[in-house]
Amino acid sequence: MDRRLFIKTLIASAAASQGFAKANDSSPTAAQIDAMEQKHLEIMSRYQSFLEGEKLTIGMLVYPGMFLMDLMGPLTVFEAMLNRDIHLVWKDLKPVNEKPTGSTSVSIPITPTTTFKDCPKKLDVLFVPGGVPGTFNLMRDTEVISFLHEQGTSARFVTSVCTGSLVLGAAGLLNGYKATTHWATMEGLAPLGAKPTNQRVVIDRNRVTGGGVTSGLDFGLTLAGLLRSPAYAEAIQLYLEYDPKPPFNAGTPRTAPKSVLGFVSDMFGNTGDVAKTAATEARLNYASYFKR
Amino acid sequence: MDRRLFIKTLIASAAASQGFAKANDSSPTAAQIDAMEQKHLEIMSRYQSFLEGEKLTIGMLVYPGMFLMDLMGPLTVFEAMLNRDIHLVWKDLKPVNEKPTGSTSVSIPITPTTTFKDCPKKLDVLFVPGGVPGTFNLMRDTEVISFLHEQGTSARFVTSVCTGSLVLGAAGLLNGYKATTHWATMEGLAPLGAKPTNQRVVIDRNRVTGGGVTSGLDFGLTLAGLLRSPAYAEAIQLYLEYDPKPPFNAGTPRTAPKSVLGFVSDMFGNTGDVAKTAATEARLNYASYFKR
Repeated sequence: MDRRLFIKTLIASAAASQGFAKANDSSPTAAQIDAMEQKHLEIMSRYQSFLEGEKLTIGMLVYPGMFLMDLMGPLTVFEAMLNRDIHLVWKDLKPVNEKPTGSTSVSIPITPTTTFKDCPKKLDVLFVPGGVPGTFNLMRDTEVISFLHEQGTSARFVTSVCTGSLVLGAAGLLNGYKATTHWATMEGLAPLGAKPTNQRVVIDRNRVTGGGVTSGLDFGLTLAGLLRSPAYAEAIQLYLEYDPKPPFNAGTPRTAPKSVLGFVSDMFGNTGDVAKTAATEARLNYASYFKR
Repeated sequence: MDRRLFIKTLIASAAASQGFAKANDSSPTAAQIDAMEQKHLEIMSRYQSFLEGEKLTIGMLVYPGMFLMDLMGPLTVFEAMLNRDIHLVWKDLKPVNEKPTGSTSVSIPITPTTTFKDCPKKLDVLFVPGGVPGTFNLMRDTEVISFLHEQGTSARFVTSVCTGSLVLGAAGLLNGYKATTHWATMEGLAPLGAKPTNQRVVIDRNRVTGGGVTSGLDFGLTLAGLLRSPAYAEAIQLYLEYDPKPPFNAGTPRTAPKSVLGFVSDMFGNTGDVAKTAATEARLNYASYFKR
């Protein structure tokens, strides 16, 4: 990796220690970067065990109807790794929103950094975030499914968070693998040949899938440990101060009060059935991808 | 709240159950929204205890050098609440990036939805995310500090995640209050008159501050419980499947292996000293805000 780029990846966390940057300008000057370069080379030389490792190429699918938090957990962890390229991939470079346009939510458009056509091959990580109804749209989208199938057969790790696993499954990438998804869509996994596994993060050979939405941080750190080392992942965990203390214990149907589960289940309506139907349909549509 | 808007806020999670929207179009049609409206009114009538509550107005500061994950945790929780307006506030409406432009990170620009001048007064929630060096820039920025001081004296809850508390403190809003921040900048709190408190989320009267970065989800759910009800927050926790299972136990200096703490501390350099200096400087610059 270009040495200067490598140093620049260290600037964000180091910038603070310089107290530079006048108000409204948080971009270090070339001189300041030079000043920090020597310091960081010293630090790096003291911590080779953390910093060595081949350059990683990470491809993260972004799409209309994706749930932004599904992307942000893993992205935050991957960005904290050194010597990696992260690509946000979609059909074109037009910004996609993380929420259906029907919602009144604050919309944070995500601009893809590359396209299916230009995305590097043999990714170290292929990642698909979840989000409904976006997920169900993708399961019927031949262009998306073909891209994932092709990349998935050559990627070092094939991964997802939340309902992203249903899209991987539609591309035949979870056939015979243990996997998980959001609790409300677990019924969608079996029709795709996957073995539904009720764990926060499920690892089966090179498939790594996370549960609903907020599993992204647990997933990201797990993958960082596999890609680099446990110590490397621990450094990221400490940097992000990931010491979760949920104020309530309702994060799963198992622990949530009955009344709360009843309300949220009603809000999800028949999402589970829809997931099952979409999965069955996808397996028929892309039958050739399920041959092994 | 406008009934139609209210219904639309329910669409995102309900959309899936309809399995509508052809590929690449995750926006429900007016007819589909109408079809869902009746269904949701039925659900709502069954769950008044979850859905009632006055409309909330939430103002979240966004700024150059902010750390996006600090915003996303709380934003994800707040977006899951019904009957609320969320404003992303900055000096102008130009997009701000969450990382210094010196970094090679994937940049996700955040576009403010309103300005200091147009931001509603008497906010239910005033929120400031962290991020260095952006935080230290803001602590010296009279325009920002004046805005926060004015809003902070009228807001129902004055809140932050990570180093955002140092900016609140610079505006005299934590003088005499228990508060927390990222572990690497705890030294910055005392000079601002705050009482450094080593907890994931610290509540002191109407001040609610979270620890580093990933505390945003714990913070958001805590605040949702205060704004609505514990059951309401539990429903959001279940929706987001927030049942964290960190694969490592290095989320705090207390639990991290010595070698990991050594590396991350070196990466932060003298950030703690810089925070202390910036805090001392801010208290002098804005002395009048500290009078009580």
